[in-house]
Amino acid sequence: MRNLRVAFGQTNPVVGDFNHNLRQIQDAIEIAHGNADLIVFGELALCGYPLGDLSYRRDIIDGSESALQTLIQFSKSYDALTIVVGHASHALGKPVATQESFAIAHNSASVIEAGELIGTYHKQLLPNFDVFDDWRNFVPGSEELFFSVNGVKCALAICQDIWTEDDQRSKALAASGVELLVVPNGSPFGKGKHETRLTAARKFQRGFGIAYANLSGGQDELVFDGSGFLLHPDGTLAFQAGITEGVQLSTTESVEHTETERLWEALVVGLRDYLAKTGQRKVILGLSGGIDSALSAAIACEAIGPENVYGVALPSRYSSEHSIADAKALAENLGLNYSLIEIDQAHKAFEHLVELGDVAGENIQARIRAVILMGISNTDGQLLLSTGNKSEIAVGYSTMYGDSAGGFAPIKDLYKTEVWALATWLNKSKGKELIPQNSISKPPSAELRPDQLDNDSLPEYEVLDRVIEALVEKSLTIDEVAATGINRELVVQIDDLIRKAEWKRAQGVIGTKVSAVAFGSGRRVPLTTRFEKL
Amino acid sequence: MRNLRVAFGQTNPVVGDFNHNLRQIQDAIEIAHGNADLIVFGELALCGYPLGDLSYRRDIIDGSESALQTLIQFSKSYDALTIVVGHASHALGKPVATQESFAIAHNSASVIEAGELIGTYHKQLLPNFDVFDDWRNFVPGSEELFFSVNGVKCALAICQDIWTEDDQRSKALAASGVELLVVPNGSPFGKGKHETRLTAARKFQRGFGIAYANLSGGQDELVFDGSGFLLHPDGTLAFQAGITEGVQLSTTESVEHTETERLWEALVVGLRDYLAKTGQRKVILGLSGGIDSALSAAIACEAIGPENVYGVALPSRYSSEHSIADAKALAENLGLNYSLIEIDQAHKAFEHLVELGDVAGENIQARIRAVILMGISNTDGQLLLSTGNKSEIAVGYSTMYGDSAGGFAPIKDLYKTEVWALATWLNKSKGKELIPQNSISKPPSAELRPDQLDNDSLPEYEVLDRVIEALVEKSLTIDEVAATGINRELVVQIDDLIRKAEWKRAQGVIGTKVSAVAFGSGRRVPLTTRFEKL
Repeated sequence: MRNLRVAFGQTNPVVGDFNHNLRQIQDAIEIAHGNADLIVFGELALCGYPLGDLSYRRDIIDGSESALQTLIQFSKSYDALTIVVGHASHALGKPVATQESFAIAHNSASVIEAGELIGTYHKQLLPNFDVFDDWRNFVPGSEELFFSVNGVKCALAICQDIWTEDDQRSKALAASGVELLVVPNGSPFGKGKHETRLTAARKFQRGFGIAYANLSGGQDELVFDGSGFLLHPDGTLAFQAGITEGVQLSTTESVEHTETERLWEALVVGLRDYLAKTGQRKVILGLSGGIDSALSAAIACEAIGPENVYGVALPSRYSSEHSIADAKALAENLGLNYSLIEIDQAHKAFEHLVELGDVAGENIQARIRAVILMGISNTDGQLLLSTGNKSEIAVGYSTMYGDSAGGFAPIKDLYKTEVWALATWLNKSKGKELIPQNSISKPPSAELRPDQLDNDSLPEYEVLDRVIEALVEKSLTIDEVAATGINRELVVQIDDLIRKAEWKRAQGVIGTKVSAVAFGSGRRVPLTTRFEKL
Repeated sequence: MRNLRVAFGQTNPVVGDFNHNLRQIQDAIEIAHGNADLIVFGELALCGYPLGDLSYRRDIIDGSESALQTLIQFSKSYDALTIVVGHASHALGKPVATQESFAIAHNSASVIEAGELIGTYHKQLLPNFDVFDDWRNFVPGSEELFFSVNGVKCALAICQDIWTEDDQRSKALAASGVELLVVPNGSPFGKGKHETRLTAARKFQRGFGIAYANLSGGQDELVFDGSGFLLHPDGTLAFQAGITEGVQLSTTESVEHTETERLWEALVVGLRDYLAKTGQRKVILGLSGGIDSALSAAIACEAIGPENVYGVALPSRYSSEHSIADAKALAENLGLNYSLIEIDQAHKAFEHLVELGDVAGENIQARIRAVILMGISNTDGQLLLSTGNKSEIAVGYSTMYGDSAGGFAPIKDLYKTEVWALATWLNKSKGKELIPQNSISKPPSAELRPDQLDNDSLPEYEVLDRVIEALVEKSLTIDEVAATGINRELVVQIDDLIRKAEWKRAQGVIGTKVSAVAFGSGRRVPLTTRFEKL
């Protein structure tokens, strides 16, 4: 590696917006030129990632290839810099006999230098788990690409290529005399993920350094959290980039973040980029006085400024005084736009039109709120936020077309216990009570009937969250979960609730993924199941 | 093949309900015993298919393996019958170096004879396109299993195994002297699919016969339509089973269906089985007087009987007289439970609570209807049907949490032009006007403002449907679609509408898949995209 200066181009692409993506890359090259010998961009930085089944469309692949040509021309004026950039490219055949997919393209990265294409590498290991559909969408490559930067022998790998138990390839790279492995990534944020990446990269090293570059920004439910790094051949850290978008140079100081800072930033960026990339500027949400809507509002205010956040308190006949007071306090603390609409008139109109049973009577309040919020949204153009958390989404503790309605759900992948912890952290880290202490400390309630508490129908969240995590994120069996010291009947009951809510989640709103298995595109289970005898 | 008598066990399994699935298999064996030498069941008939990520759970795989053991014991009393049954089994390793998945199990089929396990075969080609996630969920096998039935040499393949361009394996099977290839399938219904299956099977033949067995029944958005068949070594049809559930014997007469009968039956079975397998008996839907709700109601009446179907006319201030008359005529023709609720009182209540712009004023009517229908559903226990068709779902011509709300959408994969055609066919085939002729012939309207017509905002459905099919089902580019003789600007506009409605479909209700690419789990595209320059 011998003092190679590496720039990490943590761009934030939009899927299919080649001009936008190219401009970001060109801006990064301008900054890096003269300050680095090599600039590395993330996986598919030119076309955006993940493409999903858009990878079947020839115009997307054509667009990606012509953006690459433009970049090659552009690089003429920056001849002291080697550029590594991710893009899609047409595949000529299916080199793997076992691949049964419609894929027509490679997930590629090209090396460019002074107006010339040095070579193109195609990703070899295509992940097919969690949110990743690479094996479905791309044709794997099989060849190495070697290139040299200032006399340092480099090779390329893309993301999953280095996350393997198999050491055949890493040994071969070492045997070929590779000094630096350059790795563009499309690696989404997850709790503890940064450490996992370092561990995976170090495990793949065989006496060569690694330049690990990642994308930045939100794309639907995923947030790419940058955090590129440069490893010395012995695995020690030469440079650690931060999570922020833009160019980061290995000649500058490394950046450190705590795990909670990373989590908070991911939630903020996830919402901000979803809005920005879909051309929206404002959000609206119902403020119940509870902790979920409070934390969601705080994330929104951080993401787009409180002047673009509209909070509406929508008390029903069962809402308590403290709910309205807490909602109002939150709005004042955050400085967001606050209003109050009593829903009882609509409630009465429906009661007049249709006879409602107990559950229906509860649900209708949540649905009236959704009708009002969507009415304002359709009139004034704010995106409606759904404020459900992972615990209630798991067990179906929500009203369809009521509180589940919205265009984005900022905390849908946070367990209730994590919601409390993050709210507490936020107040502490901002040095003031943004989220009213009462919203944090009062017992949670949906307030859809008199004196209702979540714990009337659900176990304590500390237990519930542990069981959900075991069943959903670790795919443990009921016996295995019970063996961790939890009453077996309770586990059966929670498993049952999770399965019965599958149809609700199938219609669920997207939100930022922060866990190993989020409710979203990375978890694919049938709606119709019966496990009577398990 | 020499007059081997083959039984096709077209069972209708429920995912994870091993007892239920086993019982069906045992019943089929009782019937086949004495009347057949070989009975073949569908892919994963013991555990249900598709399993999705439930394939990661050890208790599902354990349950599948112990159900197999029970079946082996059971087979002792039926010793003149060879049984081929699909099931999941634990995999010991990952034989394919390129597989990057969490899979722990094989997609297997076992051969059983008189209380003995003759052998187990593991599916080799794992499809990874459309709704299929086999490569994600299973570990591929690599070995042949040969067995003999009454002196006829047989081998096994599972579904995708025979849908391949590669003729290496089929040649090897022929070289081994295989006379009959036994193929359990989990092949969902699709328009024209039956012919495609015959063609694929014939293409794979190399002088051996094929016994093609399929599952039966609905599983979420899929309908398995039986239609097993037996091919002579020369490709001629020895026996063709029908689409109905249960055992079909190759010694009986072949069954024929028209394409429209197959389509109708798939729509009926899809809804019927979703209800049955999730423990529901009744449905409710709004009757607008239009063709979509009329056809949906007709499907529901056929599926579960008109006495279990509740139709509610929900006129707003903009509803025309003919709408109510047509809704009422439909209800009388079908004999379903009919009621009428005027929504204006709720409409006024909301207008009093919140100021509504034009679009909001339209949407709120659809949302009020959903609140009322869900209120009845939550009170009386009917499942709400959403009656949207593929054309409007494609371009987002629907109200979120309004007409898009429901637990199942029977015609979501039918284009508007297909809805008309099927309604016309239905009246003709039943020999009476079930669907009022006026609902078929009047110009479609959402009736959310005075004199509104679909064609005010959308192109003629004949053109729209062609463009959607080209973009969505064939992944054609805009230029390619324009080259088929459609105005390029119109194609761009429709492409844009399709992309902008992605967030709505991501929250869409499931419904029976009948096309090559349905809006559902088989189509995976980002919500956030920009294609400014394509």
